Amino acid sequence: GAKSLLIPVQPVDIAEAIEGLPESSQLIAFRLLSKAEAIEVYEYLNTDVQQALIQEFKRQEVLDIVDKMSPDDRAKMFDELPAKIVRRLLSQLSPKERQATAILLGYGEYTAGRIMTPEYISLKENLTVSQTLERIRSLSNASEVVYYLYVTDSSRQLTGIVSLRDLVIAAPDTTLAEIMTRDVVFVHTDTDREEVARTIQRYDILALPVVDSEERLVGVVTVDDVIDIIEQEATEDIYALGGVQSDGDSYFQTNLLTVARRRVVWLFVLLLTNTVTGAIIRYNESLLQEVVILAAFIPLLTGTGGNVGAQSSTVVIRGLNTEEIQNMGAGKVVFREAAAGILLGLILGVMATVWAYFLQGSFQVAISVGISLVAIALLASVAGSALPFLFRSLNLDPALMSAPFITTAVDVLGVLIYFNIAKTILGL
Amino acid sequence: GAKSLLIPVQPVDIAEAIEGLPESSQLIAFRLLSKAEAIEVYEYLNTDVQQALIQEFKRQEVLDIVDKMSPDDRAKMFDELPAKIVRRLLSQLSPKERQATAILLGYGEYTAGRIMTPEYISLKENLTVSQTLERIRSLSNASEVVYYLYVTDSSRQLTGIVSLRDLVIAAPDTTLAEIMTRDVVFVHTDTDREEVARTIQRYDILALPVVDSEERLVGVVTVDDVIDIIEQEATEDIYALGGVQSDGDSYFQTNLLTVARRRVVWLFVLLLTNTVTGAIIRYNESLLQEVVILAAFIPLLTGTGGNVGAQSSTVVIRGLNTEEIQNMGAGKVVFREAAAGILLGLILGVMATVWAYFLQGSFQVAISVGISLVAIALLASVAGSALPFLFRSLNLDPALMSAPFITTAVDVLGVLIYFNIAKTILGL
Ligand SMILES: [Mg+2]
Ligand SMILES: [Mg+2]
Ligand SMILES: [Mg+2]
Ligand SMILES: [Mg+2]
Ligand SMILES: [Mg+2]
Ligand SMILES: [Mg+2]
Ligand SMILES: [Mg+2]
Ligand SMILES: [Mg+2]
Ligand SMILES: [Mg+2]
Ligand SMILES: [Mg+2]
Ligand SMILES: [Mg+2]
Ligand SMILES: [Mg+2]
Ligand SMILES: [Mg+2]
Repeated sequence: GAKSLLIPVQPVDIAEAIEGLPESSQLIAFRLLSKAEAIEVYEYLNTDVQQALIQEFKRQEVLDIVDKMSPDDRAKMFDELPAKIVRRLLSQLSPKERQATAILLGYGEYTAGRIMTPEYISLKENLTVSQTLERIRSLSNASEVVYYLYVTDSSRQLTGIVSLRDLVIAAPDTTLAEIMTRDVVFVHTDTDREEVARTIQRYDILALPVVDSEERLVGVVTVDDVIDIIEQEATEDIYALGGVQSDGDSYFQTNLLTVARRRVVWLFVLLLTNTVTGAIIRYNESLLQEVVILAAFIPLLTGTGGNVGAQSSTVVIRGLNTEEIQNMGAGKVVFREAAAGILLGLILGVMATVWAYFLQGSFQVAISVGISLVAIALLASVAGSALPFLFRSLNLDPALMSAPFITTAVDVLGVLIYFNIAKTILGL
Repeated sequence: GAKSLLIPVQPVDIAEAIEGLPESSQLIAFRLLSKAEAIEVYEYLNTDVQQALIQEFKRQEVLDIVDKMSPDDRAKMFDELPAKIVRRLLSQLSPKERQATAILLGYGEYTAGRIMTPEYISLKENLTVSQTLERIRSLSNASEVVYYLYVTDSSRQLTGIVSLRDLVIAAPDTTLAEIMTRDVVFVHTDTDREEVARTIQRYDILALPVVDSEERLVGVVTVDDVIDIIEQEATEDIYALGGVQSDGDSYFQTNLLTVARRRVVWLFVLLLTNTVTGAIIRYNESLLQEVVILAAFIPLLTGTGGNVGAQSSTVVIRGLNTEEIQNMGAGKVVFREAAAGILLGLILGVMATVWAYFLQGSFQVAISVGISLVAIALLASVAGSALPFLFRSLNLDPALMSAPFITTAVDVLGVLIYFNIAKTILGL
């Protein structure tokens, strides 16, 4: 495993150790750190600990720590702090850092502009390698991104990129124009952060330049922040699949009422849907009165249908989110899922028929169960695969059509199908 | 978005363009590339295209391309090729690359050893900065990792790390010993790849050194590969939550039979469980015969219970996998979920009671439904949160206790609870 020492040395480990202390000792422990350490550790603290410390900070400490944070980390923290504290902090920052933060906070949530850092090195193409190295030596402390140097023209437009590796290898008097790569992958300030993440992942790069609407270089998104975004987005999708709302905060750090609020909406929608199932059963009371054993197979049919539909919606939603099925059309995917649904319905339908016959001894009931299962599996896989596409095309989150919803929708339609098939076969 | 040109220039874009061609033209298009391009593009091709091309390669092409691939990418490809082709390719590689590949393939699947690259730069600590820069100039083509230089002692044990940034900034005659960081985060060859990914994410590093059982440096895992692992692991977890097996291959590139095979096992298990629900209903046939309306509320109760349980298991499984709940004990988590379950059960129970009374007019049935819902919600949230912990402690994948299983288990127990509560309240 990662090295475990008795006294943590990496900033993130120190941050975790401080978080583990009682609140009253956190500030004391934090003040034991050197200035350089304090800045690094502070960025890694949980928002609530950051906030608790900030309340105690004197003006000088704010300048020492908050002013020296990476602008992207500072913007993220400001996002979560109460507006009153943010105003006070902004007024205490140096003008340069205040402006940098205000610019980032001006971009929409979940965009490249919000997660980029303005601390990169940009140079003109007529500089030589040795001049550039000189510049790096003087700038590197003020820059978060040093492994790529960005070349811009007189209007600040991005024209090329030079990696530190290429720079170190090149002869001292070569100009950047000679060694730079002109095919630069970049995004715009309003690009969604998920697309930013996919771009870094696709091109295997360590940082991605961000340009504004006039194509001027304004920032750089780094791979370490992209990893966190990929993880957060995966959590968001997983929560959606489980019928839990995500709201940026950690589920396990919120209180019980927030937990209930994040879950009750979905449950309420599903409860309403299920009342429809109940109404259908109520409407068919006379059928059940005659053949009460039919009720015994409702959970099996709706349960299996729900699971088949959940499988289809899960793979389609994940495929849409990772863009794995982008070049396969919706038609082809739904058709394939329909075929899988029929195949699975047949396999399970045979088993269910045998079991129903064994439990009841009525061939007609058994065959009704079997045929219903095939029909329900087909319906479930078509609904589970088609609805996410439909939602995506309506510009809604396809994850809304996830397992909980499909499962419940299949309950309604499944009961309807089952009763009608049973009525026909039993001649009622 | 990322730059879109008519003629793709980035290797990954060229690879995608080739994949889009009919199979007969893929080799022709590939041969139009320069040697340097060909190597880069080849690494990005899908395994099936890589394999199709390899069948056509002449001995010289194997040396030109497969011999020059990164050892980690080559190992990954060999993993998926038929053994016969791997043997042939291995015999055609240069001895150095053959050995490097054999070493990687010798480490267990999903370990750091399997995903690391042996192409890093390691140096001795008495080297000066200018000597080091000289070495980098000669070595950088043979090395995938250049932004970190690893310092080892005479027994090849890792003693420090120097970033290229620090090297460029340092005075030419400083020694590495003076500028290196001695607190190096590292992993062992047998560390699970998920822990590798978490370590890189935690420490915000671009590459992670891997040491063998004698603590000798043997490879480095790079962040670009870690991003892919994080995405694959998220897909694996999402599939588990949806009741679909993952087997490394893309779901959308496998044939219908494989799709059915990856889904039928779960469905079969759930079908069996649901037959138990059926048997319980069958056993209570006389109760239903008397109060047939009770059947109308079965889907509502089991459905809601299933959804509450699915929510709990989803957040707990995700929390275990991202280690978000590592420092919260199982007891605390389950207790909190139980409280949430009761709260949600009460909210939904009141609604369900009102609705049941409205649908049926029987106060006793309505109150049975309401009380059952609270009990089922409590049971579901306890099962949904406790079972993943139990499985983890048995060294099984907690994701096995995911939504589909919980939902179905709650069906069984829910019906049992409901009938018993109804019997008591109705006095039957
Ligand atoms: Mg700064
Ligand atoms: Mg950072
Ligand atoms: Mg998003
Ligand atoms: Mg990649
Ligand atoms: Mg950052
Ligand atoms: Mg998303
Ligand atoms: Mg090589
Ligand atoms: Mg690669
Ligand atoms: Mg794993
Ligand atoms: Mg990180
Ligand atoms: Mg690699
Ligand atoms: Mg996993
Ligand atoms: Mg269900």
